[in-house]
Amino acid sequence: MASTARGDRAWRPSGVVTLTTDFGQRDAFVGVMKGVLLGIHPSVAPVDLTHEVAPQDVRAAAFHLRHAWRYFPRGSVHVAVVDPGVGSQRAILLALEDGHAFLAPDNGLLSGVLGPDAEVRALDVAAVALPEPSRTFHGRDVFAPAAGRLARGDAPSSLATGAAQWQRLEWPAAVALPGGGFEAPVELLDRFGNAITALKGEELAAGSARGWTARVRGRAIPLCGTYAEVEPGEALALLDSCGRWEIAVRDGDAGRRLGLAAGDRVQFQPGAGG
Amino acid sequence: MASTARGDRAWRPSGVVTLTTDFGQRDAFVGVMKGVLLGIHPSVAPVDLTHEVAPQDVRAAAFHLRHAWRYFPRGSVHVAVVDPGVGSQRAILLALEDGHAFLAPDNGLLSGVLGPDAEVRALDVAAVALPEPSRTFHGRDVFAPAAGRLARGDAPSSLATGAAQWQRLEWPAAVALPGGGFEAPVELLDRFGNAITALKGEELAAGSARGWTARVRGRAIPLCGTYAEVEPGEALALLDSCGRWEIAVRDGDAGRRLGLAAGDRVQFQPGAGG
Amino acid sequence: MASTARGDRAWRPSGVVTLTTDFGQRDAFVGVMKGVLLGIHPSVAPVDLTHEVAPQDVRAAAFHLRHAWRYFPRGSVHVAVVDPGVGSQRAILLALEDGHAFLAPDNGLLSGVLGPDAEVRALDVAAVALPEPSRTFHGRDVFAPAAGRLARGDAPSSLATGAAQWQRLEWPAAVALPGGGFEAPVELLDRFGNAITALKGEELAAGSARGWTARVRGRAIPLCGTYAEVEPGEALALLDSCGRWEIAVRDGDAGRRLGLAAGDRVQFQPGAGG
Repeated sequence: MASTARGDRAWRPSGVVTLTTDFGQRDAFVGVMKGVLLGIHPSVAPVDLTHEVAPQDVRAAAFHLRHAWRYFPRGSVHVAVVDPGVGSQRAILLALEDGHAFLAPDNGLLSGVLGPDAEVRALDVAAVALPEPSRTFHGRDVFAPAAGRLARGDAPSSLATGAAQWQRLEWPAAVALPGGGFEAPVELLDRFGNAITALKGEELAAGSARGWTARVRGRAIPLCGTYAEVEPGEALALLDSCGRWEIAVRDGDAGRRLGLAAGDRVQFQPGAGG
Repeated sequence: MASTARGDRAWRPSGVVTLTTDFGQRDAFVGVMKGVLLGIHPSVAPVDLTHEVAPQDVRAAAFHLRHAWRYFPRGSVHVAVVDPGVGSQRAILLALEDGHAFLAPDNGLLSGVLGPDAEVRALDVAAVALPEPSRTFHGRDVFAPAAGRLARGDAPSSLATGAAQWQRLEWPAAVALPGGGFEAPVELLDRFGNAITALKGEELAAGSARGWTARVRGRAIPLCGTYAEVEPGEALALLDSCGRWEIAVRDGDAGRRLGLAAGDRVQFQPGAGG
Repeated sequence: MASTARGDRAWRPSGVVTLTTDFGQRDAFVGVMKGVLLGIHPSVAPVDLTHEVAPQDVRAAAFHLRHAWRYFPRGSVHVAVVDPGVGSQRAILLALEDGHAFLAPDNGLLSGVLGPDAEVRALDVAAVALPEPSRTFHGRDVFAPAAGRLARGDAPSSLATGAAQWQRLEWPAAVALPGGGFEAPVELLDRFGNAITALKGEELAAGSARGWTARVRGRAIPLCGTYAEVEPGEALALLDSCGRWEIAVRDGDAGRRLGLAAGDRVQFQPGAGG
């Protein structure tokens, strides 16, 4: 934990505030958060990452945030509220990493973001909350006012004075197989039904994967460079946009077609399938 | 109804325009409304409250607007279009309340917003509509141009000259029970499956509710201050972020778990359940 | 194809960027595109047209774009990414039409937009892409950077030097019936269950349709000017907000009630049904 001054000097807000929640879009929860942001900083630019995280699915929200934040300009505030502990004594973290600011309950949400040099503080809730905050909607009453202040240029140390310990999620990882290759769990199914595994491009580069085969639920699936290498309706594995190997079906839904779910294990091995 | 001059003097636009509709997000309806807004006022800040109101569910839209508008800065324009009467002779209201402006068809949408001092006028549709307006999409052809003009600073009286009568919805309310306590209907189930009742915190304060029990569909449910007072999976009642007592399940979906629906009646009574 | 200079002279960005995709809202795909846009042009105004196009449904996306783009101010950039060919050699088009710019894969997406005078170029992908672009997410790695540059005022010719041939979709059309009237397929069901047909107001004006009847799946349905001409729950045909005849049910869902689907054929004929 560095000194207060370091974080404050490094904080140059871009005016962008991203929102990642499990609030859905059927109610006005997210709109109300934006109202609070706009009341504090009229030129804020709120951006929805997603609000369709399944209720209380901290891990999925952490996944989205992990793979999204670096595409925003430095000086962005990233608010993540998937918060089964709302109303309890869990801390709210204000973290600074590489010029970005993060606000999230201390439940592992920032595990994919914060490196060893991150500055992590506990938000001084009483100092930032709206008057008479509710016990159930800290997104509106605590997170939005804090994000609005950061976005308009308040010093991080004025919102969060004390350093904080913080919870980390353990991420699923690929393991090397004795005979060569890897086994990796499916981490997430995306909207298209692509099954994103934990195997990274750093572990198995696309160039080295020519002729390799993925095995999942008894099926052999070729490792490819692009969807167009197989016919429509056929399964393939390829490096996805997060740098992970995914199982996909060209112009189709691999999750549904192959019966895949998060947690399923996939083997990646040299050689053609048989 | 005050004089024209009062409303015009009071109107200082913030540039924010909120949108509450039953248009969904599958079509481009909402995007097109924003296009019209941006064409009229390039620095407008449109904010979605929700577009997932069930088709023609005026009451749900009125609920969301009622609990959201005060979280936006004064000078915001709130557009609500749930409009089964589109194309008929129903009036479109332009109302001013506490420095905010509202545009909605006259069907009760503003019942939760307008107080006795509100200025309510009938929009002069012909003066604000796009050329050749459709009979089916006044959101684009009438509401968006009117909101864009208000947001850029046009005087309310330039868009709506005549005072208007307007429809009010009757809101469900809690009733006192003869033996003490209250009975209140469920007004709305939110995204998490929380069942929001009509019983307000003004009627039963959290501090006074210690030891009380809610009864719903034969079950006894404790009144609590926060989710964390029960175990995950257990039901509780607590004050929600709108200041209403809600029936919830910690880390779960009360609507599904307890079989609750809007209109169900809940009893709140002193003493433990048995 | 006009000279480079013409398109460049005509390009005066409004700062608005619309987004039409099949990315859904469950993942962070769309948010990440906005992050890239904001990094390149901090005062960009991104607007979602829709992200709920069914995966790979180029035709539905083309429909939405066709009926939406003219409601945005000149100088808007319209990005459409429904892209089954991502990662293959398909071109990405940069087109200029009536002062608007369009970015889309060359698969017919712009068929409803581009007229005979449109300038259509092939995007110079290598010149605009983010470093190390993925093979699967050109929305983030190619389209968003190109749109950000156009929105901040880069000359179109600096992103796309060569003229391009481009694919057109054939649109379904109404045909005249021998005995008078028209037959037209259903093009799309909207959120309300309205079935939008290919029959245009230019072909059958509302004023001329008095006393006409639509026939669909054996039912006779009156042509009307507005929903209010029938009772709640009754079917009618009326001119929709795109200038097409639609089959609707007042305060109901025609798709579900009448069992309609895209492709179903509707007859429109003079005279009352029997």
